[in-house]
Amino acid sequence: MSQVKVGDYLFQRLAQLGIKTCWGVPGDYELALLDLIGDAGIDFRGNANELIASYAADGYSRINGAGAFVTTFGPGELSAYCGHAGAMYHEMVKKISVDTAVLTDLNTAGSDIDRCLNTMLYESRPVYIGVPVDMSHQQISGEGLKTPLKRELPPNDKGEEDKIAKEIMSMIKSAKKPVIIMDGSAVRNNLTAESNRIAEITGWTFVTTCMGKGAANEELPNYSGIYEGAGSIEEVRKVVEDDSDFVLWIGSFRTDFNTGEMTDFVDEKKTVDLQRFFTKIGSKKYDVGMHGVLKALLSEVEADSSIKAKDSKVEWDPYPLPEAAKEKKELKQDFLWSVLDKIIKPGDLVVGETGTSAFGLAAVRFPKGATGYNQTVFGSIGYAGPSFTGALKAAKEAGIVKRGILITGEGSLQLTPMCFADLLKLDLKPLIFVLNNNGYTVERLIHGKTASYNTLPVWDYKQLCTVFGPEFPSKYYGPIKTCDELEKLLDDPELHRGDCFQLVELILGELDAPWSVGQVTAKIEEFNSKNAPPKDAGMSMGG
Amino acid sequence: MSQVKVGDYLFQRLAQLGIKTCWGVPGDYELALLDLIGDAGIDFRGNANELIASYAADGYSRINGAGAFVTTFGPGELSAYCGHAGAMYHEMVKKISVDTAVLTDLNTAGSDIDRCLNTMLYESRPVYIGVPVDMSHQQISGEGLKTPLKRELPPNDKGEEDKIAKEIMSMIKSAKKPVIIMDGSAVRNNLTAESNRIAEITGWTFVTTCMGKGAANEELPNYSGIYEGAGSIEEVRKVVEDDSDFVLWIGSFRTDFNTGEMTDFVDEKKTVDLQRFFTKIGSKKYDVGMHGVLKALLSEVEADSSIKAKDSKVEWDPYPLPEAAKEKKELKQDFLWSVLDKIIKPGDLVVGETGTSAFGLAAVRFPKGATGYNQTVFGSIGYAGPSFTGALKAAKEAGIVKRGILITGEGSLQLTPMCFADLLKLDLKPLIFVLNNNGYTVERLIHGKTASYNTLPVWDYKQLCTVFGPEFPSKYYGPIKTCDELEKLLDDPELHRGDCFQLVELILGELDAPWSVGQVTAKIEEFNSKNAPPKDAGMSMGG
Repeated sequence: MSQVKVGDYLFQRLAQLGIKTCWGVPGDYELALLDLIGDAGIDFRGNANELIASYAADGYSRINGAGAFVTTFGPGELSAYCGHAGAMYHEMVKKISVDTAVLTDLNTAGSDIDRCLNTMLYESRPVYIGVPVDMSHQQISGEGLKTPLKRELPPNDKGEEDKIAKEIMSMIKSAKKPVIIMDGSAVRNNLTAESNRIAEITGWTFVTTCMGKGAANEELPNYSGIYEGAGSIEEVRKVVEDDSDFVLWIGSFRTDFNTGEMTDFVDEKKTVDLQRFFTKIGSKKYDVGMHGVLKALLSEVEADSSIKAKDSKVEWDPYPLPEAAKEKKELKQDFLWSVLDKIIKPGDLVVGETGTSAFGLAAVRFPKGATGYNQTVFGSIGYAGPSFTGALKAAKEAGIVKRGILITGEGSLQLTPMCFADLLKLDLKPLIFVLNNNGYTVERLIHGKTASYNTLPVWDYKQLCTVFGPEFPSKYYGPIKTCDELEKLLDDPELHRGDCFQLVELILGELDAPWSVGQVTAKIEEFNSKNAPPKDAGMSMGG
Repeated sequence: MSQVKVGDYLFQRLAQLGIKTCWGVPGDYELALLDLIGDAGIDFRGNANELIASYAADGYSRINGAGAFVTTFGPGELSAYCGHAGAMYHEMVKKISVDTAVLTDLNTAGSDIDRCLNTMLYESRPVYIGVPVDMSHQQISGEGLKTPLKRELPPNDKGEEDKIAKEIMSMIKSAKKPVIIMDGSAVRNNLTAESNRIAEITGWTFVTTCMGKGAANEELPNYSGIYEGAGSIEEVRKVVEDDSDFVLWIGSFRTDFNTGEMTDFVDEKKTVDLQRFFTKIGSKKYDVGMHGVLKALLSEVEADSSIKAKDSKVEWDPYPLPEAAKEKKELKQDFLWSVLDKIIKPGDLVVGETGTSAFGLAAVRFPKGATGYNQTVFGSIGYAGPSFTGALKAAKEAGIVKRGILITGEGSLQLTPMCFADLLKLDLKPLIFVLNNNGYTVERLIHGKTASYNTLPVWDYKQLCTVFGPEFPSKYYGPIKTCDELEKLLDDPELHRGDCFQLVELILGELDAPWSVGQVTAKIEEFNSKNAPPKDAGMSMGG
């Protein structure tokens, strides 16, 4: 007892405070810590979301004198802060906004609003504008409104831009095995049309990433699949990392989920990386942004008849199917993702939740005209449903999308099921697939296959729509348990008509996941195992 | 157009960014601002909670290029930060924690844990301990665990404490019309037993506040009701503010909700205020904390035979009933609160949500041995359900409570309904009253009686329990629409048995509220009206 683990020390201290129940939501970076909680005689009681966990800890401490909740860092803790907070909100929000203003001065209120919104547009990141209760109806000059907000970035220095474009063009022309990666920053900078067009003209090996999925034109004959480091199919990994002599990386976005947990290895020397505010050629960074450079490149490529698409058919299947997926018995993830393209049509907006949904969607063929996204950067579960609601509303307002498809897991859905009330009330007629695998499957595969912290309350998904919108029509399909049932459903014309809110519940195995998850989680578990002995025999506490 | 309102300026700028739908949750300090949103051609679409609103704005901006959500400050914005955030979490959390540590150094990990937990106990406020993923299973010395955490505050300077106690005793002895107010800090400092005992011995006029409700012994003959400034019954207001010549204010806690929106007026000169870290006599502050002072006072009072409870029966009814409440037709709030004492028994823990529930509960007679609380300070709706879950779990673990009763509104419940899954799974057998008044009633009374932002999606509450816990027994009673139906239900032995999760849905009028709300919201609306013209004719946007 003279030596203890850090986590044991912490939980023993909490136990000394009379804490018998600890609240929270399990998350990737917290699982090894949770393994220790039972040793201190504390039960971990998972909640549907972190806000609930923090409030439960508050209530617990009112009775016991002290309470605690554990979440993963980042999204987990941020969702919890309402239950944890005291004051100093403006000081806090400064840390998560590129600009803030609290409108306390009538002389500057207008310019404060303009400055914040222009910063938001320039940085493409959130700002915060606080309107005190006694300010909104005060009069100020409206002259400022006549000056449009700055929706375009300021242009690059023309001379510098031309120089960089020429340098890249010479690299392009001498390349023998060039590769184009269309990545997250291409999407965020709204340069997907230009990216797809360059891929089309050149005919080069064209890959995207998890963050680029849903924006790449997958009908191009040179579309080759998804690059995500160790999570890639071997042919893609090989062509990008080993065979290529030039990589045009349009908007690289190196986060854990977008790089197969940082298992990507592309030699910097052969890479040109285009970003919002700079361009990198090899290791050298130039002060010219991608908007100008990519458009200049596109013009040059279009004008140069020596750069023509050869017969650039990909030699491998960008959507390979593991043998196991072909067994048609109980429903498996790999089978699911191999047939889901039947339902995705041009005009669809497809949003995938963090977890098996995002990984699986990467393996689904998207027709041209179908778009989609998932939250690869922040990885906050519970995000997809409400985000999908917002995106579908905007897309329908703009008339650019016919139908919205949400693919989520039941664990994620349990954080924010009330978005169903919004979807119903707004009459957005979504098609929603809920992957019910009786717990946090990705977490299970990362760490704690049978640990109780990876379990969830059982819900009755059939009734969800009528609870949240009894006044609106909705349809429930399921529970779908076999491959046959899924194929039959995907052929059902009623499902395709989509004339109301539709919810499909898919029953999947607790440890079943798309093949790419297996490759990536093996890497993470390798890391966790170094730091925590496996606890797959189950923990002593209840579910 | 040369002059515009600040809020119009903001929304016109948002409209210029193509924003047609703005997400959010309405809150007290934001309503006047929301009145302006429709003028800019933007629809306000309320969500179930701020996390959902911020995620919806994220999704919306992915399609439209920009998105926005509006929440009230404090709890509203804090719940939203997961959807708004980027990075720098530790910097953020420092602003809302009395101490923080991220365990990056094995040499200090144990002492960092101890320091944070001791600060938490000392300040009685949250701390933050970040455990990096590679740290929890590392070994450190366990010697520190043998030194107990400091659960008691350090004692006052004995000489100073005696001096202060004597000074207060001389004020007590010369008082002709003394009053005791037991307030929030008495509860938070766990000094309710001592406070009740002093009230019992002295027999003085004894009142509590909204924050003290549930901790005062209301069976004392001198218990006189709730003091909340303009929200008090007139007899209480008069005795505290006008008639008294000495006020022993045990733990004053002057927040908006606890003071009838700052309408309390107690002359400082005649007041002794006891706080965690100081004692104030008149305007003079002394560096001695309430734990020592109150216990010293109790000893002196117990020992001094000249201070004896006279025949101290209160001359008024501490639970007065407005005439309107006596009409037994459709269910009204004042009737509800006048009969709810039938269900509250010794051993009950009663938690009330912010809104009409908290105000109404203040008017319900609690028997000795029934305890309760509500979140008067932060006023974050959606808090009560999860907090109740945590409190009931702790209370059952400690064996100090027989049954938990939660009283909440449907608007608040819509933020965190998933806590029902926890209550069911943990087998806590709660009795829950949901006041369904078709929208945010307190907000309506504050501002915007018919404004669409104060409406809510319609849910089917009957199915809530089976959705969130189909494997566990639960009972639904309702919808209760009349006084007769409620009285019959409150006499139903099945309801009193409480052998499973029980949900009672009460249907109440949109603008019906406890009489004290009317008094207080009139004060707030007076303020808002100065800053925003009334918009009670309804807004042009949909619900």
